[in-house]
Amino acid sequence: MSDAPRRPLDDIRALIAGMPGPDLAAAAAVAARDAQLTKPAGSLGRLEEIAAWLATWQGKATPTVDRPTVAVFAANHGVAARGVSAYPPEVTVQMVANFAAGGAAINQICLANDIGLKVFELALEVPTPDIAEEDAFSEGELAATMAFGMEALADGPDLLCLGEMGIANTTVAAAIHHGLYGGTAADWVGAGTGVEGDGLDRKREAVTLAAARLAGVRDGLEVLRRVGGREIAAMAGAILGARHQRVPVVVDGYVATAAAAALHAVDPRAIDHCLFAHVSAEKAHRAVLERLGATALLDLGMRLGEGSGAALAAVIVRTAARVHAGMATFAGAGVSGPAD
Amino acid sequence: MSDAPRRPLDDIRALIAGMPGPDLAAAAAVAARDAQLTKPAGSLGRLEEIAAWLATWQGKATPTVDRPTVAVFAANHGVAARGVSAYPPEVTVQMVANFAAGGAAINQICLANDIGLKVFELALEVPTPDIAEEDAFSEGELAATMAFGMEALADGPDLLCLGEMGIANTTVAAAIHHGLYGGTAADWVGAGTGVEGDGLDRKREAVTLAAARLAGVRDGLEVLRRVGGREIAAMAGAILGARHQRVPVVVDGYVATAAAAALHAVDPRAIDHCLFAHVSAEKAHRAVLERLGATALLDLGMRLGEGSGAALAAVIVRTAARVHAGMATFAGAGVSGPAD
Repeated sequence: MSDAPRRPLDDIRALIAGMPGPDLAAAAAVAARDAQLTKPAGSLGRLEEIAAWLATWQGKATPTVDRPTVAVFAANHGVAARGVSAYPPEVTVQMVANFAAGGAAINQICLANDIGLKVFELALEVPTPDIAEEDAFSEGELAATMAFGMEALADGPDLLCLGEMGIANTTVAAAIHHGLYGGTAADWVGAGTGVEGDGLDRKREAVTLAAARLAGVRDGLEVLRRVGGREIAAMAGAILGARHQRVPVVVDGYVATAAAAALHAVDPRAIDHCLFAHVSAEKAHRAVLERLGATALLDLGMRLGEGSGAALAAVIVRTAARVHAGMATFAGAGVSGPAD
Repeated sequence: MSDAPRRPLDDIRALIAGMPGPDLAAAAAVAARDAQLTKPAGSLGRLEEIAAWLATWQGKATPTVDRPTVAVFAANHGVAARGVSAYPPEVTVQMVANFAAGGAAINQICLANDIGLKVFELALEVPTPDIAEEDAFSEGELAATMAFGMEALADGPDLLCLGEMGIANTTVAAAIHHGLYGGTAADWVGAGTGVEGDGLDRKREAVTLAAARLAGVRDGLEVLRRVGGREIAAMAGAILGARHQRVPVVVDGYVATAAAAALHAVDPRAIDHCLFAHVSAEKAHRAVLERLGATALLDLGMRLGEGSGAALAAVIVRTAARVHAGMATFAGAGVSGPAD
């Protein structure tokens, strides 16, 4: 309608504005069946909530989790050169090789639990600019990276778990959270893979500098463009693409949550199809979850990334679906209901 | 040595006194390997602790969880006739039929996660006496029931999950906890399967009467004999038998925890090989876990029993073992360690 030139992020904003809403009829069907199953009402707690949540966002009266997939996005970050991590930047590409060889924790978690795993490399040889000094992306680059993230849906998973690998990406996530939620850098910076002492000071300084460049910007996509990173942008794209394809999403830890936080800042409803897998041991994760109004499923003191927490949560989500679909009803099993 | 006549519980007490201790060499082997795996130290949180715990109690440097089994013990209770449950007593036998037919939640949880399931019926047609008025067992009956519980080990599981089914058994568990830990009946009585109003008043009264019959008895086995129930005694026996066969145990919810609490009252070390699966939504479970010094693995608002929480926890325990055994080392994978 307007004569304003199209901007690169317009398509992304249109996808956010046009995302499908909840399927309340499917949720009601799950609730009606749940009330007939051979157990006291409510006695499966979050498993019952998860079955209803799956139905709501799959748009299916009998939700299924038969093709759960972990998508791990790997990227490198210019800010790593500041010495903000306990590990050198080459570990990102080394760990991608480890994923390919089956030697990482996420490989073993997926193998033990029959969950699919796909690893997406995002131009590891060309780190994004140092966010303490420069924007991570142009608008076009951010849009393209988010679109690439939607490739996580290509094989048709019915539950998508999002994880990441990228030396220095807790620094990037902290910058996003600091930008979105204010406070001081120290509120959002933790040990990540285990940085301490001078490295931790450098990490706080980098996050302070990055957030200062935001100068009050609160738009989630613009925050992502200025102080984000490729794996986080790709995960944000994957969350958005999953919504449109009616695939519920399990979000891993502190870094993956930054992708959800950026979308949430644009429209809080944009992450209603996301379940937060666990409370990371990364210090500020709990505070971010609170801002998102989310109650994580697990709290196991994990802080690895790679989608490791999301994969464990996916096992519980799959179990919730199978229990709902497979249990007998009181009438079918000849079990008496509550006494009057 | 003494000329005192043997008493029926002497063999049980001898098993408690003679239980094997921790295998610290196996635990050290796990810690040494864990430090070499391609992840930041400590980043798998409780999964790392679980691998060490498995090694400690299996007595194996590389612990395995290849034959996890859920044992569900079912029993009936005379106290049910007081109207302390939301469900009529015949539901116990009906649910056992439902287990056999595959229609219960625990069937579906085990099926979805490749976990074995065995159901043990404990003379369902003859409830134990009403513990508000009479002792549940003679010493001989208690010893025999605990010995029967050791049958859960017969098929050689390498991880044993303990669950139960028995209308009115949260009343029995509350009586045990009240007896062991004092306070008032209201401290230990919750809604169970959903009792409220007059039924909840009757439940509190029954627990008050049962605990009054204990008259200061604190010995765990004597508490169990006077105010216990068959499924709880069998689970206590299973915990003890598992210790001697070096099988780690995952304890389900409020009722299963009462079995562990009784042993703990005899000797706190008797449950060191037990992991507590989850915090039940049954009100007083958290307080009992605190008395046992236990931190449950999951907190999913569940309160079904049947071993349902234990089976979910077993998936995480198995994953911990597989991750530990299967991951690559830094040296093997060519991944750099932390920067100096």
